Amino acid sequence: MIGEIVCVGTELLLGQIINTNARFLAERLAELGIDAYFQQVVGDNRGRLVAALELALQRSDLVIACGGLGPTEDDLTKETVCQTLGVRLVPDPGVAERIVGVLRGHGSRVVEAAVAKQSLVPEGATVLPNPVGTAPGLLVSKGGKHVALLPGPPQELEPIVRQHLVPLLETLLTGHGGPVQAGARTSTSGRRSYLFSRMVKICHMGEPAVEEAVRDLIHSANPTVAPYVSIGETHLRVTAKAADPDEARRLVEDAVAAICRRETLGRYIFGFDEDTIASACGNLLRQKGLSLALAESLTGGLVGHMVTQVQGSSEYFERGLVVYSNRAKIELLGVAPELLSRHGAVSEEVARAMALGAQSRSGADVGLALTGIAGPDGGTGPKPVGLVYIALAGADKPEECHRYVFSGDRQLVTERAAHRALVLLWLRLRD
Amino acid sequence: MIGEIVCVGTELLLGQIINTNARFLAERLAELGIDAYFQQVVGDNRGRLVAALELALQRSDLVIACGGLGPTEDDLTKETVCQTLGVRLVPDPGVAERIVGVLRGHGSRVVEAAVAKQSLVPEGATVLPNPVGTAPGLLVSKGGKHVALLPGPPQELEPIVRQHLVPLLETLLTGHGGPVQAGARTSTSGRRSYLFSRMVKICHMGEPAVEEAVRDLIHSANPTVAPYVSIGETHLRVTAKAADPDEARRLVEDAVAAICRRETLGRYIFGFDEDTIASACGNLLRQKGLSLALAESLTGGLVGHMVTQVQGSSEYFERGLVVYSNRAKIELLGVAPELLSRHGAVSEEVARAMALGAQSRSGADVGLALTGIAGPDGGTGPKPVGLVYIALAGADKPEECHRYVFSGDRQLVTERAAHRALVLLWLRLRD
Repeated sequence: MIGEIVCVGTELLLGQIINTNARFLAERLAELGIDAYFQQVVGDNRGRLVAALELALQRSDLVIACGGLGPTEDDLTKETVCQTLGVRLVPDPGVAERIVGVLRGHGSRVVEAAVAKQSLVPEGATVLPNPVGTAPGLLVSKGGKHVALLPGPPQELEPIVRQHLVPLLETLLTGHGGPVQAGARTSTSGRRSYLFSRMVKICHMGEPAVEEAVRDLIHSANPTVAPYVSIGETHLRVTAKAADPDEARRLVEDAVAAICRRETLGRYIFGFDEDTIASACGNLLRQKGLSLALAESLTGGLVGHMVTQVQGSSEYFERGLVVYSNRAKIELLGVAPELLSRHGAVSEEVARAMALGAQSRSGADVGLALTGIAGPDGGTGPKPVGLVYIALAGADKPEECHRYVFSGDRQLVTERAAHRALVLLWLRLRD
Repeated sequence: MIGEIVCVGTELLLGQIINTNARFLAERLAELGIDAYFQQVVGDNRGRLVAALELALQRSDLVIACGGLGPTEDDLTKETVCQTLGVRLVPDPGVAERIVGVLRGHGSRVVEAAVAKQSLVPEGATVLPNPVGTAPGLLVSKGGKHVALLPGPPQELEPIVRQHLVPLLETLLTGHGGPVQAGARTSTSGRRSYLFSRMVKICHMGEPAVEEAVRDLIHSANPTVAPYVSIGETHLRVTAKAADPDEARRLVEDAVAAICRRETLGRYIFGFDEDTIASACGNLLRQKGLSLALAESLTGGLVGHMVTQVQGSSEYFERGLVVYSNRAKIELLGVAPELLSRHGAVSEEVARAMALGAQSRSGADVGLALTGIAGPDGGTGPKPVGLVYIALAGADKPEECHRYVFSGDRQLVTERAAHRALVLLWLRLRD
């Protein structure tokens, strides 16, 4: 089965809201194993909505139209879908009663005309009750095509989809027809297929190097392997499709195992799926019984925030020192004032002294320090904006310091520096 | 001029990422007064990408295609656009040099084939330099149609659009052609209309209260006033449309001035547009010549990160202490061990001692402290997950402490606590 999402609303075309519905619905289609090749967004305009619906119905079996089910005149999705499919709208007294109940519960005024409009239902459609708002979802089928209509507000759309639409589509896909099947045929021969997906997370290798390492797998059709770039990381999404969920999972796990066995690449896989570089560091710290202290200058606390977003981080995170001033560097970390005056706060010497100070003064096993120029001002020829030193001390190894020049605005430079610091920590702990 | 956004990426069709680019680009088109009737999303598939591009070129004058400009084989937007328009791809040595520079700065390996692919440019195209990544943006014009190509990562796309694409489109619209105008005509005769928009940012009042305070303005047609909810804040977007940019601006400024005069609401407006609660606090600290020290437990450095995202924050931000362990609270802030054992680390008494300790030990004028239970574990009956104490000391006022129970997961609880802490700081400094 091929599905297509059509989002209706001029506010999307004007960029006034983010299209979170498209993402939510796309995820549900993928979970159901329904292929999706296109998405469309169209405004509250009858002619263009007809064009979008006709295109979608011509190339897809299931069209999910969201938005434009409200009580006002510019809400015309239901009317336009019925016109396009050639289906009549009929009043549904049960829906009307429900709408009045919701309005009364919210202490809202009942406007008869609005209730009359919202309680019209395409003849033969399945009503998908709205637990929190007035416009119900609807599923209407004709000539082997299915159109689902959903209200636009995510807090209404999401429960309708979870509670009603997904189970109905499950039924459609497996072919045990409920009431929705009356007169409906799936236009594809319709054996159901299942998707399973895992994300492999790699640090310290850019996307081209990762792609080179798994080029043979990227050309495979099932499972598919696709690279994604994130700040300081490369991810490989491995997705398989099969008639059986266990088979899909097995295909993915075999490919993931093959990726993990790749010589260089395998060494830089720090986690899977929901893992972060901070949680990967946390696992190693816990495993080795080590504690961590941070000394942050340009990142201002971001590394600490990333470390502490991991549940249970209090087991290994001792403290963080956000030393924005020279005075704080001297008082809290024992950085020698001569180092600061001779080399400047952004220097290898100061970064090393910060890492050593964080470690020794806190009594933690590992000290991690960052100093740099986040910009946009403060750069000079030998010390440009984006210059960052990251130093590590402790865990029975000689201290180390690395120099980078990151590009981007203030936020991006600090994010890149923070990610890189955790990658360096992970590499040090792993070996 | 009619514009159309075409986002390319299978990850969008699978719902793996939210399409924030579509929203960002749609906002820019609206600001430029370029009409938009449709948006499309299509996967990394050559045939379907051709179909989407042909459809867009047939009904729109400007097509903005984003995603699929990376160095790997499934990145095929540039190649497909050139094929559709009938334009050759030629190597650009300047682009190649820039890519190598970015890779070296980040400490990444230079893969020759990847550089060669990313530095191919459609013949006659305008290169829109990418300040933070490898793939440049491109604007190619042929037969009265314009196609802009942009890399998918928002941190690369957004600066390219702001710095290069928007000014080029301005030039196109006003008809003083730069090199991009070679052979270009706008297909609509179109009297141009101008949008102007400002965001008014309010803290300490929920959306319903804000809406009530400006109900009369929300019903106005031009300018429009629309409320948006953000974490701990409510924003009002004021937008006007006029045939003249000065007229649009005047309509907006008048409405904004009216909002600022509202009795209660006016007192909680902390800023406009790009202002954040952290930058608003920074302005007050600078204005009053005060310095700030932070003591963070549950937020782990997030408040420090927010404070230091503001350019120039080193003028007033002295230091931050991320005191995750009791030992750190005692050593770095002088919290009495008896307070910790009697009341627990999450208590009003400890929060007050943390704020006082941060202020007095650092010599800063204001101390701000947070302690709480971020969850998901660690809650008990009298101290549930989400319990947060925020204390303030200094600036010639008696210390204060506030108790909250925030809802949400670990991340949302810490974000809410961090925002709230800065709102409390702003209120204290303002009065």
